[in-house]
Amino acid sequence: LSGSYRKLQFDAPVGVFDSGVGGLTVLAALRHEMPQASFVYLGDTARLPYGTKSPETVVRYALRAAEALVERGIGLLVVACNTASAVALPSLRQRFGDLPVIGVVEPGAEAACASSASGRIAVLATEGTVRGKAYERAILARRPDAQVISVACPVFVALAEEGWHDNAVARAAALAYVAPLFADPRHRPAPDCVVLGCTHFPLLSGVIAEICGPSVARVDSAQTTARSVARLGEWRAAAAPRVHCLATDGIERFARVGARFLGAALDPRDVELVDL
Amino acid sequence: LSGSYRKLQFDAPVGVFDSGVGGLTVLAALRHEMPQASFVYLGDTARLPYGTKSPETVVRYALRAAEALVERGIGLLVVACNTASAVALPSLRQRFGDLPVIGVVEPGAEAACASSASGRIAVLATEGTVRGKAYERAILARRPDAQVISVACPVFVALAEEGWHDNAVARAAALAYVAPLFADPRHRPAPDCVVLGCTHFPLLSGVIAEICGPSVARVDSAQTTARSVARLGEWRAAAAPRVHCLATDGIERFARVGARFLGAALDPRDVELVDL
Repeated sequence: LSGSYRKLQFDAPVGVFDSGVGGLTVLAALRHEMPQASFVYLGDTARLPYGTKSPETVVRYALRAAEALVERGIGLLVVACNTASAVALPSLRQRFGDLPVIGVVEPGAEAACASSASGRIAVLATEGTVRGKAYERAILARRPDAQVISVACPVFVALAEEGWHDNAVARAAALAYVAPLFADPRHRPAPDCVVLGCTHFPLLSGVIAEICGPSVARVDSAQTTARSVARLGEWRAAAAPRVHCLATDGIERFARVGARFLGAALDPRDVELVDL
Repeated sequence: LSGSYRKLQFDAPVGVFDSGVGGLTVLAALRHEMPQASFVYLGDTARLPYGTKSPETVVRYALRAAEALVERGIGLLVVACNTASAVALPSLRQRFGDLPVIGVVEPGAEAACASSASGRIAVLATEGTVRGKAYERAILARRPDAQVISVACPVFVALAEEGWHDNAVARAAALAYVAPLFADPRHRPAPDCVVLGCTHFPLLSGVIAEICGPSVARVDSAQTTARSVARLGEWRAAAAPRVHCLATDGIERFARVGARFLGAALDPRDVELVDL
């Protein structure tokens, strides 16, 4: 990744795009890595979820969302949505020429390859991401001997949005999705690395860890993406680093549910409604 | 409801509209009640879910979906989506003049009032339906002494789509959402009727019943709506009653997940992709 763009000097805000509130986990990680930068976040809440939609539809939505962010003067685009990262990066890069576009899949795959000793890597993601096989391709490009087992975990998305991270429902769902990875004889030896391949899943990291056990590495693609972005350029300190949020629907819900993902309070008055 | 329209003679197909596959529970009930009728079903899968979107957005989507069905020559429109029934019926009736438009909320409320002895009625629904208070209004209009307790159960939607109707996750979720209705001292005496106020929830009827116990009536708005529609008119027997499905995205997933809701196999080749 580091070779893809020359080291850049940024004073424009960083654009972050997701289908909804989940990408706020990526925004939180970016703010942690680059406290001096300003951000414009767009959550396409009117058309979420992307995870169950066709690649053509996801590409169309991603192009429109990116246009709205480019109009706001961003200097770099982070595609925080795993589904859009998996299918829309080539179209976005073609359409927006000079604008660096960073997805969450490549950094996640890189971190997984670095973390796994055995090369047996599990990817937990949405149906769309699993079907698109983007993590699988990105991991095998770096490590052709790797064995990737992908599991679609759509119920985790609803649990994260409901704030059920640490209750009996979350534990039962983690058991249903994750335990077979370690119990199924077809998966012997068991994976030694689990990629949380959806922005919502870091919130369930605790209950997932209870099933995996302490010897299995968990790769949080929000964190690994933020580190990749921070390494790309030098952010000039803005006088007052600013985070501005845009959403295509449901400002009140965006602020209420989004606060869980951002890990900080979000005032609905700081969220702007946009029509794409 | 029976007074709203004169008794009609139908030979045109019945249009059924939902945000996705959930409304296929209503289609299944309609086919059972009216085996001689033909149906055109539209699932707006490109823009689901409606349950978390704003009323303005849901109205806009519902009008476009209804237009597409009217272009197919329907003689009656069933709005199978609870969220759209709760907010879009007045706009639909205004826009489409003579076309009878039936939602799922009124028949569900009517059945709940008939089933409940105590007038203490619980409504399980999506966030959008609960926020819109449509069931509450419809129940109180019929029975001003009723006490309605509404619970938003968004995780049930994901469980129904995942096919987790009868496992530990479904039981834990039913316990988390439904048990407080019967344990919370503020809800004494406990409700004696539970409305399944989302098309997805009849699939979880079994685990919900385990929590409620046998003395609590469950109202399935799919069934009650189908009975209301059947009473509205006389369907002329078509030579070959036909069900045609339209979806705005993801034909393959529509057929695969939809079969669970329809309770019958669905061939992806029988589902037509439409762009609204």
